Amino acid sequence: MIKIKISEIAALVKGIISGNENAEINSVARIEDASPGSLTFLYLPAFEKYFLSTKASAILVKTGFNKTRNDITYIEVDHPEKAFASIVIHFFTPDISLSGIDKSAFIHESVSIGKNAAIGKNVIISSGCKIGDNVKIFHNSVLLENVEVGSGSIIYHNVSIRENCRLGKRVILHCGSVIGSDGFGYTTDENGNYNKIPQLGNVILEDDVEIGANATVDRAALGSTLVKKGVKIDNLVQIAHNVTVGENTVMSGQAGVSGSTNIGKNCILAGQVGVAGHLEIADEVILLAQAGVSKSIPKSGLYFGSPAKEVKIARRIEAHIRSLPDYSERIKNLEAELLKLKEQLAKNKS
Amino acid sequence: MIKIKISEIAALVKGIISGNENAEINSVARIEDASPGSLTFLYLPAFEKYFLSTKASAILVKTGFNKTRNDITYIEVDHPEKAFASIVIHFFTPDISLSGIDKSAFIHESVSIGKNAAIGKNVIISSGCKIGDNVKIFHNSVLLENVEVGSGSIIYHNVSIRENCRLGKRVILHCGSVIGSDGFGYTTDENGNYNKIPQLGNVILEDDVEIGANATVDRAALGSTLVKKGVKIDNLVQIAHNVTVGENTVMSGQAGVSGSTNIGKNCILAGQVGVAGHLEIADEVILLAQAGVSKSIPKSGLYFGSPAKEVKIARRIEAHIRSLPDYSERIKNLEAELLKLKEQLAKNKS
Amino acid sequence: MIKIKISEIAALVKGIISGNENAEINSVARIEDASPGSLTFLYLPAFEKYFLSTKASAILVKTGFNKTRNDITYIEVDHPEKAFASIVIHFFTPDISLSGIDKSAFIHESVSIGKNAAIGKNVIISSGCKIGDNVKIFHNSVLLENVEVGSGSIIYHNVSIRENCRLGKRVILHCGSVIGSDGFGYTTDENGNYNKIPQLGNVILEDDVEIGANATVDRAALGSTLVKKGVKIDNLVQIAHNVTVGENTVMSGQAGVSGSTNIGKNCILAGQVGVAGHLEIADEVILLAQAGVSKSIPKSGLYFGSPAKEVKIARRIEAHIRSLPDYSERIKNLEAELLKLKEQLAKNKS
Repeated sequence: MIKIKISEIAALVKGIISGNENAEINSVARIEDASPGSLTFLYLPAFEKYFLSTKASAILVKTGFNKTRNDITYIEVDHPEKAFASIVIHFFTPDISLSGIDKSAFIHESVSIGKNAAIGKNVIISSGCKIGDNVKIFHNSVLLENVEVGSGSIIYHNVSIRENCRLGKRVILHCGSVIGSDGFGYTTDENGNYNKIPQLGNVILEDDVEIGANATVDRAALGSTLVKKGVKIDNLVQIAHNVTVGENTVMSGQAGVSGSTNIGKNCILAGQVGVAGHLEIADEVILLAQAGVSKSIPKSGLYFGSPAKEVKIARRIEAHIRSLPDYSERIKNLEAELLKLKEQLAKNKS
Repeated sequence: MIKIKISEIAALVKGIISGNENAEINSVARIEDASPGSLTFLYLPAFEKYFLSTKASAILVKTGFNKTRNDITYIEVDHPEKAFASIVIHFFTPDISLSGIDKSAFIHESVSIGKNAAIGKNVIISSGCKIGDNVKIFHNSVLLENVEVGSGSIIYHNVSIRENCRLGKRVILHCGSVIGSDGFGYTTDENGNYNKIPQLGNVILEDDVEIGANATVDRAALGSTLVKKGVKIDNLVQIAHNVTVGENTVMSGQAGVSGSTNIGKNCILAGQVGVAGHLEIADEVILLAQAGVSKSIPKSGLYFGSPAKEVKIARRIEAHIRSLPDYSERIKNLEAELLKLKEQLAKNKS
Repeated sequence: MIKIKISEIAALVKGIISGNENAEINSVARIEDASPGSLTFLYLPAFEKYFLSTKASAILVKTGFNKTRNDITYIEVDHPEKAFASIVIHFFTPDISLSGIDKSAFIHESVSIGKNAAIGKNVIISSGCKIGDNVKIFHNSVLLENVEVGSGSIIYHNVSIRENCRLGKRVILHCGSVIGSDGFGYTTDENGNYNKIPQLGNVILEDDVEIGANATVDRAALGSTLVKKGVKIDNLVQIAHNVTVGENTVMSGQAGVSGSTNIGKNCILAGQVGVAGHLEIADEVILLAQAGVSKSIPKSGLYFGSPAKEVKIARRIEAHIRSLPDYSERIKNLEAELLKLKEQLAKNKS
């Protein structure tokens, strides 16, 4: 079992220890679930109720926290949740269980495979593929021809990658994701029948891209659908053909981007956001959940609603919408008052 | 071929037979498709047009139905559609075709497998898994380490289950569903790069949970993502890390719930509903299709819209919104009238 | 390498050549990426900036285009983008790499397989299936019992098809799609528990239907979920049980249709559209992105919003909504003015 000294942990996050600094922890846990040997953390007031009863051996708290218990070791930091995340990343990143090349995997003779790569059961790697060092490809995943996978990448099980797609280094593809399916492109004839336009391009996922479970990234009609360095994409997201997603942009579950749209860098698309095709979205645009974008967004900022508006405007309009029953009443009153005035005036005159 | 006496059927649903009670039926069908030997049902007025021509041998109708045909056997009940469902459940639940343990399945030597379990082709069951009695796991599904599957569960093909997840009894996972993929959790550094936080928890699906095709349930960062007893989840639904879904809650296609939200019991989330993270949704909350929930909902009721409002309020506001062209016109009229009055008053004065 | 004469290309699209009509092209490319030997096209003004620098050997342009370069061959047509698509379809439709029946595929002895069919690795084809001529089924896809696949169909990898479903000719199923999963149907008992209603029907996909990556089409409770000739369905779309989709209807990414709804022919459902259950949607209805349809739509036209309205009305209402701050101000002014008037009148009187 892993054993880490409190002093090591405090050093990593530049925290101040109160209590036994030779104590050791063997796990991390939520404050309500923690058991002896665990490190936990407290930063939201809603969780303070668990402080007196938590069984954790050590706790990350905000500097100045009221340390009423003596049977727990405190580490004081400015941001307990960030410090906790750093500790988890540093000490508790789990090993990936896969190792070796399973004899049930089908690997075409033309494939090059790097050092320490691990290939699971029934994996299919077609001709011309290049697999980098330390890559792990889990069971039942399929790579068609000429796929390149950069070193350190992890492909979980039941993943599908179509021909000619390229993955950078340290890319993660979660279960069931599909990379390089055909873009949705057709011409119509005079009878309303659709004829499929061959999708001749590919998908490029740059370094450190992560693609969620059952998410889909379509290949370009021509050229590449391009997901740049550091982009993180959540489950069930759809990226259409010829989209470009800028560096370090994040898309939450069930968001979707239509064909040929360019999304800037450092953007955030929250859950179920939709962006129409052929648009330009600037850098550092934040689209709140369920926003629907039908026009290009040339400047950074927060946007909300369908059709999406700047959040300041959207919130003001939302407040006005909630006031509509009141406005309606006031219009009615005004009409009644005005009528009375007119009658009064008519009477005065006569 | 299956043969069931009308008298047996009527007994199950406490119905009154008019016609041949020794007749037998061999199938169930929609009124418009039925053939001789079938039982059908009629409850919606829109389907009455099929009554005179249906070829069914027997029909479930509402008590007091006008029985104008003599060549069909009637079973009168209070709720024909519910009675029909009970009959289908009781007499027509199909056998699941899978049986035996296929020799192409990879089952680690440490795995325990219950009585009568059926394991399909190319299934992969990793070390430490426990498979209960009568479980059926279809072709090409993958279970990573230490997954537990309770007795009577059915896992269809191409399903992915990550390590340490636990399924209760009689759980059904439809094709392509993913259980236990990583939660979407990152820290950012000063340059806007995202660093992945290891997702150390698991997913627990309690007894009688059903998960739709290509739906995804993420593992917890710490602790468990918890889907309680009797929850039914439709296709392409996303459940994020550390969500709890209360007993007997139902989520329709493409609904999504963000991280750490607690959904109460006996709730209904209709299609494409989105619920933001870190919220508390009370028991017996019904969210109508496409509702977007950004705040906790502390009391049961119907909610609609994005942002979601109580349905009574949402409908009133929607009516006001539809009246906006009228309101605008009336404001314009008021302004004109007022101007006229002021002019008149000014004239009177002079 | 493929080599095609400019004269052949011009003949196909009835274009007028300016420049070397004996020139040959070997590829197609976007104007910004083109290399010598490529044919490209120009129709959007936004791309004119690339005209002077493109390395393409030939370019499709609109009739009357200002041909300022002498080192490129022009083909003038009325619709460059349509002409380009026709050329890609005619000359550049890629070969599908799969051929032969892989020895790792499991094909039940009762299965009939047509001429020239190709079956990939680890494919599972259960008893009673019928596979037509020239069908291609990629690696790790699973067909349960009695599935029929019409000639010329392509099933990509990791596709799941449940028992008794029927695919017409030239159907394309993209990676991860699920055909015939159980419809979402339950009865409730007095305690709020849900009991699953067996889903006894199937799915019929008629000729020339295309289903996107990770899209799902549920089987009918009774009868068939029916997707008619020429329907094109994009990634992550959900089609519920007993839905009918009319000929040549198109559904973009993440759209969803609930149970028992009939969609007409030649409709377009844009991205993230949702249609509730038991509705009738007329032919030639266009639903703009994120529209939410809760009532039947009896006449063709454009619809937008949630709840969906005719686009003309929706746009007018949207304009009014954006004017709400102004309306609110004007109501306030009217009230103030009216008050002043009343005071003035009262003063006049006294």
